[in-house]
Amino acid sequence: MAKKYDKLTRNAAGRIVPEEINGEKHIPFKGVGKHKPTGHKYAPPNRSCIDYPDDGDKRQPSLKEALVKSGLKDGMTISTHHHFRNGDVIANQVFDIAAELGVKDLRWFPSASFPCHEPMIDHMENGVINRIEGSMNGPLGRYASEGNMKGTGVLRSHGGRYQAVQDGEVHIDIAVIAAPAADAFGNANGVNGEAACGLLGFALADAQYADRVIVVTDNLVDFPCIPWQINGNLVDFTVEVDKVGIPEKIVSGTTRITKSPDRLRIADLTARFCDAAGIIKDGFSFQSGAGGTSLAVGEFFADMMRKRKIKARFIRAGSNKYPVKMLEEGLADYILDGQTFDLEGVRSMRENPNHVNTSPFTSYNYHGKGNFASMVDVVMLGATEVDVNFNANVVTHSDGYMLHGIGGWQNCLFARTTILPVPLFRDRIPVIRDEVTTLCGPGELIDVIVTERGIAVNPNRKDLIEKVQASGLPLKSIEELKQEAEDICGVPEQPKLEDEIVGVVKWVDGTIIDAIRKVKK
Amino acid sequence: MAKKYDKLTRNAAGRIVPEEINGEKHIPFKGVGKHKPTGHKYAPPNRSCIDYPDDGDKRQPSLKEALVKSGLKDGMTISTHHHFRNGDVIANQVFDIAAELGVKDLRWFPSASFPCHEPMIDHMENGVINRIEGSMNGPLGRYASEGNMKGTGVLRSHGGRYQAVQDGEVHIDIAVIAAPAADAFGNANGVNGEAACGLLGFALADAQYADRVIVVTDNLVDFPCIPWQINGNLVDFTVEVDKVGIPEKIVSGTTRITKSPDRLRIADLTARFCDAAGIIKDGFSFQSGAGGTSLAVGEFFADMMRKRKIKARFIRAGSNKYPVKMLEEGLADYILDGQTFDLEGVRSMRENPNHVNTSPFTSYNYHGKGNFASMVDVVMLGATEVDVNFNANVVTHSDGYMLHGIGGWQNCLFARTTILPVPLFRDRIPVIRDEVTTLCGPGELIDVIVTERGIAVNPNRKDLIEKVQASGLPLKSIEELKQEAEDICGVPEQPKLEDEIVGVVKWVDGTIIDAIRKVKK
Repeated sequence: MAKKYDKLTRNAAGRIVPEEINGEKHIPFKGVGKHKPTGHKYAPPNRSCIDYPDDGDKRQPSLKEALVKSGLKDGMTISTHHHFRNGDVIANQVFDIAAELGVKDLRWFPSASFPCHEPMIDHMENGVINRIEGSMNGPLGRYASEGNMKGTGVLRSHGGRYQAVQDGEVHIDIAVIAAPAADAFGNANGVNGEAACGLLGFALADAQYADRVIVVTDNLVDFPCIPWQINGNLVDFTVEVDKVGIPEKIVSGTTRITKSPDRLRIADLTARFCDAAGIIKDGFSFQSGAGGTSLAVGEFFADMMRKRKIKARFIRAGSNKYPVKMLEEGLADYILDGQTFDLEGVRSMRENPNHVNTSPFTSYNYHGKGNFASMVDVVMLGATEVDVNFNANVVTHSDGYMLHGIGGWQNCLFARTTILPVPLFRDRIPVIRDEVTTLCGPGELIDVIVTERGIAVNPNRKDLIEKVQASGLPLKSIEELKQEAEDICGVPEQPKLEDEIVGVVKWVDGTIIDAIRKVKK
Repeated sequence: MAKKYDKLTRNAAGRIVPEEINGEKHIPFKGVGKHKPTGHKYAPPNRSCIDYPDDGDKRQPSLKEALVKSGLKDGMTISTHHHFRNGDVIANQVFDIAAELGVKDLRWFPSASFPCHEPMIDHMENGVINRIEGSMNGPLGRYASEGNMKGTGVLRSHGGRYQAVQDGEVHIDIAVIAAPAADAFGNANGVNGEAACGLLGFALADAQYADRVIVVTDNLVDFPCIPWQINGNLVDFTVEVDKVGIPEKIVSGTTRITKSPDRLRIADLTARFCDAAGIIKDGFSFQSGAGGTSLAVGEFFADMMRKRKIKARFIRAGSNKYPVKMLEEGLADYILDGQTFDLEGVRSMRENPNHVNTSPFTSYNYHGKGNFASMVDVVMLGATEVDVNFNANVVTHSDGYMLHGIGGWQNCLFARTTILPVPLFRDRIPVIRDEVTTLCGPGELIDVIVTERGIAVNPNRKDLIEKVQASGLPLKSIEELKQEAEDICGVPEQPKLEDEIVGVVKWVDGTIIDAIRKVKK
């Protein structure tokens, strides 16, 4: 049940957050670039070849046996990855088995959860699962928001999840890695097989740091499984099953460029802004999401590059057919890809050595010796809300419901220029507000808000303002944009929230940037 | 100077070894598969993006500056890799700089050293280097054998080196990784550039576990350097230099199949033995070295495969043009390669996704969840000496001089069948003896000795004996082979050794399998 935590503190962003959750101490957000880890990374237990079969055959007859041999017991942390997105069938099985074995009070630590995981609600009701730490998209988020989850949720970015595991903040007892292709030794990849999802990077931390690692596949190949995106030397057990995922739900074949005139206008303004700011030049790099508006921005970029006969050095993706087309057309040297969204993305990653698989470690981990995120020239991201200080929210709606994960969003904010192309309002609810319901990204990292009715540049970015001021683009202050939205929709209501905390949002350095409160029904 | 260590003990192989060397306790060999590590792996210090440049440019003006910024000081451990073999130019520079800075008492921890590193002798004379821990090929081995090195040498296999670093037995303060291609962030590979050496797998442990990691390159490319065999997220500093290696000494273009009739006979007998033993069948795997005899074995295998229209699942290599030709001809699905020996090997690794780069972690680390070595059907290895119990030596000559490294030799012994194709004598010194000068590999792991005058099968391998006994091959007992050699060459003299210990040989699990004593001049 949602908790009234005693020890609350106001963090550096002015948010009231707990200092302790789920019985563990956590550090309140200190400001961007203010918190440094001390000491050493987490070190997993040492192993010996003596305990593994000489012939490399680590197969167990069933997932149940593998879980039992892994020592599954009350209170453990079990991790899964979300490369199958809404087509995952393995995570539910893991907790069905735990229920069957009478195991209680588990922490499920997915890299994200989806509507297909709704059956986990039963396991939270019956005590098998204490809490979910990870993105809760859809029904699970709603369940938690209403205060039904026993433990407190912890939301982390993709990079923050890697950081938490690497730093030993989250100790994974058993990692279950479903794979579209694997050999009996545990080498596995996401590019081959019925359930091909492109790559398995979200499971990297799990493979590296979990006590026990189980690879589950419906496509067992002879050793060696090439490429080995997951290294069999990190794997304890392998399991063959009939199906690891539902292909048509893994890839979203419907990802299309928006046809909405408002969205197209936002995309057009975004591309023109980037152009005016001098960002679109030979050798530049960008990341735009897989949503309809973002895809349109990418197409506008592609047109500019074709006309000027320039190319991007790399595209950061979430890939689908649009960036793949750009790569194959020679408009970019590389795609640095964290997850593939359609079959064209999977095919390209399988065939093209310049379509490179990345991981939260390479791209996003803030407790590494740098990462790729800060080397991207411009990133376009979504948001549910933005406030007049450019702070943004990506996990809760304005009614307080936690319905989305953070994904790589926080990590991407470190790009050289961060743009949020957002509609001025959704369902007559203004997106720009006095204060965001949940703080996910500090305004100092958010440079530009592009709406269909104008563009607001963060006053901190004097360099950008100078470059674009004579461009003829509809530049406005963020207060003006907010006023326009309120003139049309009225002043938005505040969400009705209780005191109880149902979840916290971690910053990329592991500190707590905000707390999410129970929604009053 | 070579030491008379006080605390000596007889290990499970009957060898008298020190329990403490260089002021650190070590465990005597307990037998194959008897020693298991406890506790956790070593965990490197945690880092933060705060301390690394946002633009990813980690370049320092010189190697000296990078070493100073890495905190180079007395007593540190500095590591380098040997992918450039006798064409390396960076390792010497590192210690020249240390000398210039007045730094003393360093431990040099190369993955191997070569004759090109002879200048290190000056640094051992002047106190910059306390000792070398790693293979000492040629002049450095001679120098150490004569008791001139201040500290005691520690020889480890490639897998043992990874194990020692992973387990925290050897803590690397600064790793210097010379790379044929790299970007300013530190992503690096061995496939592109003037000094292309194929891969950088020997530097993996160094990148993962060293406190500070410096990548040095003569071929700086724009981010991202693809493929990143070394991950920039593990790198602290990058340095551009004119030259990281001398190409003609990196690749040994002269690697040729032997023309010696005796060697060809050994190769032929080896191949026929494998055939009679039923090893050469569709989907099998093998590893043969890059020496002239081994290459001939490979060619005999290729002929058999062509005739029978079968193919190998994989070839473990040390690659050069011969296995590459087999891969390209379709005689093998994959080459799993640990180091490339010629330009064809480099080209193939660059172009062919089925020519896969491996590391001591994937292939050899005994303290992992299994490794590839035990999954190879048959491996052919060299030896300087073999005794009547099938124990073998690979680091010292019969005069006691330590002149060779272990390489992956010990690790490879875990193959399903291990064959040593060796001449019965070299320079009129018998190879088969009552006792090896230095024990590197326990006889229980060595299955077959093939000489030009007959084949001895380890009596433990009743299965092999049964399969080959009606083959018409010249099967003999190992004692018979020894007698034949002695009939021709006489009984070999014992090496003249002092009591002082100049080095120890580690087993794959980190225990001491033997000690190497000072040679009496």
